[in-house]
Amino acid sequence: MKARRGFASDNNAGVHPDILKALHKVNEGHVVSYGDDPYTRKGIEDLKEHFGENTDIYFVFNGTAANVLGIKALSHSYHAVICSDLAHLNVDECGAPEKYTGCKLLTVPSPDGKLTPDGIRQHLHGFGFEHHAQPRIISVTQSTEMGTVYTPHEIKTIADLAHSFAMYLHMDGARIANAAVSLGTDFRKITSDAGVDVLSFGGTKNGMMFGEAVIFFNPELSRDFKYVRKQGMQLGSKMRFISAQFSALLAHELWKKNAAHANDMAQYLAEKIRAAGMIKITQPVEANAVFAILPPELIPRLQKNFFFYVWNEKTCEVRWMTSYDTTREDIDQFVKEIEKLFAR
Amino acid sequence: MKARRGFASDNNAGVHPDILKALHKVNEGHVVSYGDDPYTRKGIEDLKEHFGENTDIYFVFNGTAANVLGIKALSHSYHAVICSDLAHLNVDECGAPEKYTGCKLLTVPSPDGKLTPDGIRQHLHGFGFEHHAQPRIISVTQSTEMGTVYTPHEIKTIADLAHSFAMYLHMDGARIANAAVSLGTDFRKITSDAGVDVLSFGGTKNGMMFGEAVIFFNPELSRDFKYVRKQGMQLGSKMRFISAQFSALLAHELWKKNAAHANDMAQYLAEKIRAAGMIKITQPVEANAVFAILPPELIPRLQKNFFFYVWNEKTCEVRWMTSYDTTREDIDQFVKEIEKLFAR
Amino acid sequence: MKARRGFASDNNAGVHPDILKALHKVNEGHVVSYGDDPYTRKGIEDLKEHFGENTDIYFVFNGTAANVLGIKALSHSYHAVICSDLAHLNVDECGAPEKYTGCKLLTVPSPDGKLTPDGIRQHLHGFGFEHHAQPRIISVTQSTEMGTVYTPHEIKTIADLAHSFAMYLHMDGARIANAAVSLGTDFRKITSDAGVDVLSFGGTKNGMMFGEAVIFFNPELSRDFKYVRKQGMQLGSKMRFISAQFSALLAHELWKKNAAHANDMAQYLAEKIRAAGMIKITQPVEANAVFAILPPELIPRLQKNFFFYVWNEKTCEVRWMTSYDTTREDIDQFVKEIEKLFAR
Amino acid sequence: MKARRGFASDNNAGVHPDILKALHKVNEGHVVSYGDDPYTRKGIEDLKEHFGENTDIYFVFNGTAANVLGIKALSHSYHAVICSDLAHLNVDECGAPEKYTGCKLLTVPSPDGKLTPDGIRQHLHGFGFEHHAQPRIISVTQSTEMGTVYTPHEIKTIADLAHSFAMYLHMDGARIANAAVSLGTDFRKITSDAGVDVLSFGGTKNGMMFGEAVIFFNPELSRDFKYVRKQGMQLGSKMRFISAQFSALLAHELWKKNAAHANDMAQYLAEKIRAAGMIKITQPVEANAVFAILPPELIPRLQKNFFFYVWNEKTCEVRWMTSYDTTREDIDQFVKEIEKLFAR
Repeated sequence: MKARRGFASDNNAGVHPDILKALHKVNEGHVVSYGDDPYTRKGIEDLKEHFGENTDIYFVFNGTAANVLGIKALSHSYHAVICSDLAHLNVDECGAPEKYTGCKLLTVPSPDGKLTPDGIRQHLHGFGFEHHAQPRIISVTQSTEMGTVYTPHEIKTIADLAHSFAMYLHMDGARIANAAVSLGTDFRKITSDAGVDVLSFGGTKNGMMFGEAVIFFNPELSRDFKYVRKQGMQLGSKMRFISAQFSALLAHELWKKNAAHANDMAQYLAEKIRAAGMIKITQPVEANAVFAILPPELIPRLQKNFFFYVWNEKTCEVRWMTSYDTTREDIDQFVKEIEKLFAR
Repeated sequence: MKARRGFASDNNAGVHPDILKALHKVNEGHVVSYGDDPYTRKGIEDLKEHFGENTDIYFVFNGTAANVLGIKALSHSYHAVICSDLAHLNVDECGAPEKYTGCKLLTVPSPDGKLTPDGIRQHLHGFGFEHHAQPRIISVTQSTEMGTVYTPHEIKTIADLAHSFAMYLHMDGARIANAAVSLGTDFRKITSDAGVDVLSFGGTKNGMMFGEAVIFFNPELSRDFKYVRKQGMQLGSKMRFISAQFSALLAHELWKKNAAHANDMAQYLAEKIRAAGMIKITQPVEANAVFAILPPELIPRLQKNFFFYVWNEKTCEVRWMTSYDTTREDIDQFVKEIEKLFAR
Repeated sequence: MKARRGFASDNNAGVHPDILKALHKVNEGHVVSYGDDPYTRKGIEDLKEHFGENTDIYFVFNGTAANVLGIKALSHSYHAVICSDLAHLNVDECGAPEKYTGCKLLTVPSPDGKLTPDGIRQHLHGFGFEHHAQPRIISVTQSTEMGTVYTPHEIKTIADLAHSFAMYLHMDGARIANAAVSLGTDFRKITSDAGVDVLSFGGTKNGMMFGEAVIFFNPELSRDFKYVRKQGMQLGSKMRFISAQFSALLAHELWKKNAAHANDMAQYLAEKIRAAGMIKITQPVEANAVFAILPPELIPRLQKNFFFYVWNEKTCEVRWMTSYDTTREDIDQFVKEIEKLFAR
Repeated sequence: MKARRGFASDNNAGVHPDILKALHKVNEGHVVSYGDDPYTRKGIEDLKEHFGENTDIYFVFNGTAANVLGIKALSHSYHAVICSDLAHLNVDECGAPEKYTGCKLLTVPSPDGKLTPDGIRQHLHGFGFEHHAQPRIISVTQSTEMGTVYTPHEIKTIADLAHSFAMYLHMDGARIANAAVSLGTDFRKITSDAGVDVLSFGGTKNGMMFGEAVIFFNPELSRDFKYVRKQGMQLGSKMRFISAQFSALLAHELWKKNAAHANDMAQYLAEKIRAAGMIKITQPVEANAVFAILPPELIPRLQKNFFFYVWNEKTCEVRWMTSYDTTREDIDQFVKEIEKLFAR
């Protein structure tokens, strides 16, 4: 089983060696299960250094759960969640949000993956009208599914809009590290300072084995979250092995190095593609994704050696993700292959 | 952070070194995420060697999910699940089965944790009566929450009863390895051969870091399970790191060694307690648990150095679990401490 | 299609003529649908005269919905509801409470249908423990499924117990009129004055065609109930035809006359049965039900001419319900038939 | 309380006198509750004469429930329902379909309320892909929310499309009588003959007090519907009072007369509006609705005496519904008022 690196997704990568090492270090003796252990307390403390003392933090297994349970904590079943039509929440969760929360998703067409106040406003009606699912949450993804990044100001504007309607701002931060690095900010600037109420803080796509954190910036909202998590089938028994990964990810700025590298590789790939001159890049390259349009006949041939996904069958738009372990050589080979295929 | 071993739960233990090694071995290069990778194919094949070719196998993160989603696959919301009043499903999941499946749990008082045909029969009525949640599933735990073990014949009898009512038999096998070792059988004897329809095969409590398998012995029932798992927030992206743990657990009979050791330690503990002569053991010691009644004032003192749970506050019954890493010295020290406390 | 009266259930009866008349009276012209009409405002006012100005009142179609949605308004999915094992909520709703609210029902064996503080207390634990569905609601049925009646003091005691644990008291009042008449009290004495938080006020079994009211005594709890009702599929469009029934039921004390008559008939039936001397009555006859044990071979013969239900197949306990339209002649004939069957 | 007729909705009307009479006629003696009575058997037989012997028919209280429970019977929670973005199901049920079925709604922009095969096809992908809610049901409304009507051929085409993907066709027939009359067909032509799998047959908007029928044309799909209905809180106890309404609606072609009259009145209104010459009618007038654009300042003035709803705040499009009891005089007065307001 020899596995090479491709551009399919940052979750096709393995685990960063420092994370693996951390798993070893905490594998000693017995500790209380389900999170009442010193490693979990430390993991939470480490996150609080980045997100603020006044946060409430819970670990879950994966991103689907982080998003769905975070939203569940903020909503009743008769509420609605406003999100991009391209949001992972909307298109890639097999209906998990609807099933688990009962909420309706109200989507806004957003070609670059970013919600705008104007787009959101088309759903800001029907308040108090019992026939209408009540808008309660706005959900943004940072960085977005299209590899773009909200500025702190853009987030703040959406948060203010949400709060002015007594709504909450949820952020799917599966790739928030890539966004922070892209913007050159710390995490607070694009979360607590910008008015985010609850965040899914992603670890898996940035080099962890598994594990995401649900971070509440409003303690009112998390009061019952421990029950939400347990009933939501997301309370891990040997919790220390999630917690220790977060501690390792935050130590020595590993989170930043990993994200910076992935972003750099996306830039490098985009530059080489642009230089090659035959392929149109369709989205601003702001994080670790490059979207491009390929001639349809070329796609399957290119996929033979480098696995990646076709994003849009009709327009032949493809998505290339870079990750913490992508190398320049990977990209050089990849672009060489593209050039070869074009040359035929 | 120094962690010693106690008797609180087998999930207070860490990860067996062979399992950790396996995580290292598969941490190379990129593989497709969400289970479409060679390590996951191998993990499934390895399990099929134990459970039969004609099974359908899915990995999830934890036991709550294995049980709840397995039951979801077999039921509609208007169905009922018959289980022991002590079943983990009933008392320790914060209502996850009801929330996620909509089903009603019909419980049978069962002091030793084991369902009996007679106990089950008191709920086998109301079929076809629309006011009554329709009995659809019988769920047994093997080994039980009380450390007892169903014989193959007992399981078969319950399975036959279930099938004679067009119902299914679900087995919570969080500790099935301990049961198989206790009975001296292989897994098939107490699952497929005995008529089990779906099994939660536990890994975490037997030395894994995380991960359980949902094993269907009836392919009709699993047809849509991939959607159930995804919508149920239990599809791991870096799946290889669950799969490889299962392969390692099954290689070189690690599963058996771990379970045998835990069981032996429970026997050793029980013997020493019996020899000491002051404490009543309340359940047959058939797997890796010892239940005993302690003088109330002694409990907190004993807990100071050895963490364990009080099972029943009223009767002062406590539970001591042994695990794959429990040592004779742990037990010797523990019993010595008990004797010391009694001596005062 | 000639239909005679039996003793199967008070919902086998038709509609009281005054109620039918009321339907005619409001059947004129157009009014706004979904409850924003003068008849509905009047129906609510009429109920407030009985239950207090500081109540919040909503009409739904049936008792299942009144109970389930009332409970939904008071709970999150990780909560639990404590009720009698004989509660309609538990045994006759095909799992509707679990499906719609996600809550677990915690049942208390209660041979006479009445919860007691001691019975409730066995479930008052696990607060704050995330593995345990959190007890949130106590639900009592007044009059009970066994034809017994809680005294105001008994209700108050249970309400105080509930509130001392920050829980709520829900009352299934499908037959609350029968209880009030039995006790010689008004409605407030056994609801708001006794600490009930939300009540299902039954109309159908007391002579209405359809329609129940969910009455909140705590406005905090009903804030979002209009959405709960709509999403719960229980917002009637031509609402005036529910509302007008309630106004008619409350006008000229029709509710009291109907209930008093039904109760009297149960007493009359019980007296005649006792006088006949062959049949054991098993429950105190406090409302409009008589429970009795019959020789098994006699039951189907008696059912030929008078339909009723066997309550307990094993003990041959049967249930006879009287209703607002039961006559002395019905009972005389019924008891004569019984005597004839015994004489053979 | 004097109520005049307006154009807000056909559910602002009262009950047709023949329906009320029918309620009287069945109000005699006791019959078994929950639908096991002769009136319900007759109501079902009467519907079968129109829809075919090989149908399975269930009564529920209202249209929300008919649609939601009909869909629940055809789906698992990981399925998706394709419908018009204007479907009542999507915009007017406070998220009831999502909450109760767990399904995702996939909407198609459809300015005239009608789905087209091309519109549907944009959602016919992702089959077998576990991240994607699986398309399972297409739902059409007949007549549509915009007062337009599908031809039998159009329905057949959509049904064939559905079936070719192993999907089902659901029809929201809240106003199916208006559609049948508009097309000059019987019910079968636009339901069973056209490939509809399950129909919500509307009674309330066509002169009944309450009650809708869920009609299955595929007995496989309804096998468990009695449990779905009961758990869905929609099993009426005094069922005869729904059943008798359906019998009355079908007797002497009352359904047809009522619908024909409402349709005629819409035509009459449209003609007069067109003749007046100042107002643009925006939709084909094919059933009992007229959509028109009014000058914004005129709307509240016109609403003073004639209540109706603004359909689209931005475009000032309003909706006028006619019903079985609308009179020519109502319309004459209404149009006169419009002309007066324009003349100022």
